[in-house]
Amino acid sequence: MKTRITELFQIDIPIVQAGMVWVSGWKLASTVSNAGALGLIGAGSMKPDLLREHIRKTREATTKPFGVNIPLLRPDAQELINVALEEHVTIFFTSAGHPIKFTAPLKAAQCTVVHVTSNVKQAKKAEECGCDAVVAEGFEAGGHNGVDEIATLTLVPQVVDAVSIPVVAAGGIADGRQMFAAFALGAEAVQMGTRFAATVESSAHERYKQAVIEAKDGDTILTLKKVAPVRLLKSPFGLNAQRQESSGKSKEELVELLGKIRERKGIFEGNWEEGEFEMGQGSGLVSEILPAAEVVQRTMREFEEAKNRTMKL
Amino acid sequence: MKTRITELFQIDIPIVQAGMVWVSGWKLASTVSNAGALGLIGAGSMKPDLLREHIRKTREATTKPFGVNIPLLRPDAQELINVALEEHVTIFFTSAGHPIKFTAPLKAAQCTVVHVTSNVKQAKKAEECGCDAVVAEGFEAGGHNGVDEIATLTLVPQVVDAVSIPVVAAGGIADGRQMFAAFALGAEAVQMGTRFAATVESSAHERYKQAVIEAKDGDTILTLKKVAPVRLLKSPFGLNAQRQESSGKSKEELVELLGKIRERKGIFEGNWEEGEFEMGQGSGLVSEILPAAEVVQRTMREFEEAKNRTMKL
Repeated sequence: MKTRITELFQIDIPIVQAGMVWVSGWKLASTVSNAGALGLIGAGSMKPDLLREHIRKTREATTKPFGVNIPLLRPDAQELINVALEEHVTIFFTSAGHPIKFTAPLKAAQCTVVHVTSNVKQAKKAEECGCDAVVAEGFEAGGHNGVDEIATLTLVPQVVDAVSIPVVAAGGIADGRQMFAAFALGAEAVQMGTRFAATVESSAHERYKQAVIEAKDGDTILTLKKVAPVRLLKSPFGLNAQRQESSGKSKEELVELLGKIRERKGIFEGNWEEGEFEMGQGSGLVSEILPAAEVVQRTMREFEEAKNRTMKL
Repeated sequence: MKTRITELFQIDIPIVQAGMVWVSGWKLASTVSNAGALGLIGAGSMKPDLLREHIRKTREATTKPFGVNIPLLRPDAQELINVALEEHVTIFFTSAGHPIKFTAPLKAAQCTVVHVTSNVKQAKKAEECGCDAVVAEGFEAGGHNGVDEIATLTLVPQVVDAVSIPVVAAGGIADGRQMFAAFALGAEAVQMGTRFAATVESSAHERYKQAVIEAKDGDTILTLKKVAPVRLLKSPFGLNAQRQESSGKSKEELVELLGKIRERKGIFEGNWEEGEFEMGQGSGLVSEILPAAEVVQRTMREFEEAKNRTMKL
């Protein structure tokens, strides 16, 4: 299948594996890239040296294109970018911050830059900054989320109408029916997070992967909105955060409640009582831990099935 | 186009016009039914006698099938149902309450019953109660909304997987691309609310219709969650409700803030300062007040365009 996104990245399959903290290391990224889709290393939970190591290991494990995701709000974002450039990475997904400062230098270095956006204004801004594509990520997405709470089904067509660059749909997408739906809305690829977090090659803790496959439709919440909205499982920490928020706690109190290592505790260490189990609403559609390559193949199979089914209408 | 929903209602076009308070009277319902889709009279803002009048006027204006929407939490829900039965209505959409008490008598009276649900559990319950179909309505929807905040893109496929009866997708759907996306997810019809609220035949105030077409992607919020979650425009009342909620106000305080006639003030009287302007996230995709028949035709045209475009993938 050819779309502007497959052309842009020189990949066979228009699926992007999201660069998730504590999940998307070299093993996951290289496996997804080897399967013909685009693997991303999630730099969000890495120090610059660790990122360098993961880039090198990814390159050893695949000859296919791969990229890195850089959260621009990190104080050392520029350092992470420098490491990636030194290691000849050419595909950058930037998120959680303003792309204006970072896009031009990356473009000047011949890189492909895609910014993750959660409303129309951000998407237009990213296009103006020179980004090659945008991810339009809806309210359903796991982890950090936009403040406007715009769901994927309404966000994607509005972003498609507003920009000329290609759009990658994200947020809640965990199977091929949904991927086909995203293409109906005008997307030219999908980014899937939670589905890849529950794969064999994901770096997440087994307890976390188990929690993803056990999660039902209403088991996640968007909370901590006064700090930075995050979607996570209604695990003990998630429920506590929701209670505190609902009782009107201030930003400072919520920052203190959150602390610094909740994500690591939940996703990487599998600490049920204290950790943040970030995941998207797509978790309700994930019922098996699978090899990442099988996720890619199965999603494409379901995509074709949805296409064949709807063509008969 | 034939689906189990077009067969069930004996309609030509698998679009349902939502039964909205202060919006869906005989004029809108009969116009939509005459256009080949299914018009619903929204009993939620009607006393029993007014409902009777609207049913009679609808019948004078169309020979096509139409239905009524009954919010089951209304203390006089049974009375409304009795009026509709006396007037030989055979299509009932029930919402906002438990269908168990009402479905069996309606089925015994040879009626078709569809319940509006916002999570998998409710949908399964509706099927067990004997409903002929369910509406799976996501977080994007305007007005009263589910407590689980499950978006349409993730809700619909999970409901489709969980029940055997046909599923009508709702929540944020305002154009034919989205309708085609909903079919990709397994829906056999869509229910559209906000798109029909901004039509010539809608009973809403002109100020309200204008607000729908001016609304951008991030201009609605889901708020008043401690009372009953409702999606509305960030108009003065909406923003105030959000502020009060965020500061931790109790359910009682929010009930007092809400008062009794906010919906009427906003939607029917167009009172910008004091009214509730309930609308869904689909408002970002609505930019013109159109005749309702044109909405039906345009949506089907866009549906076909999306189908042709995705067929080429």
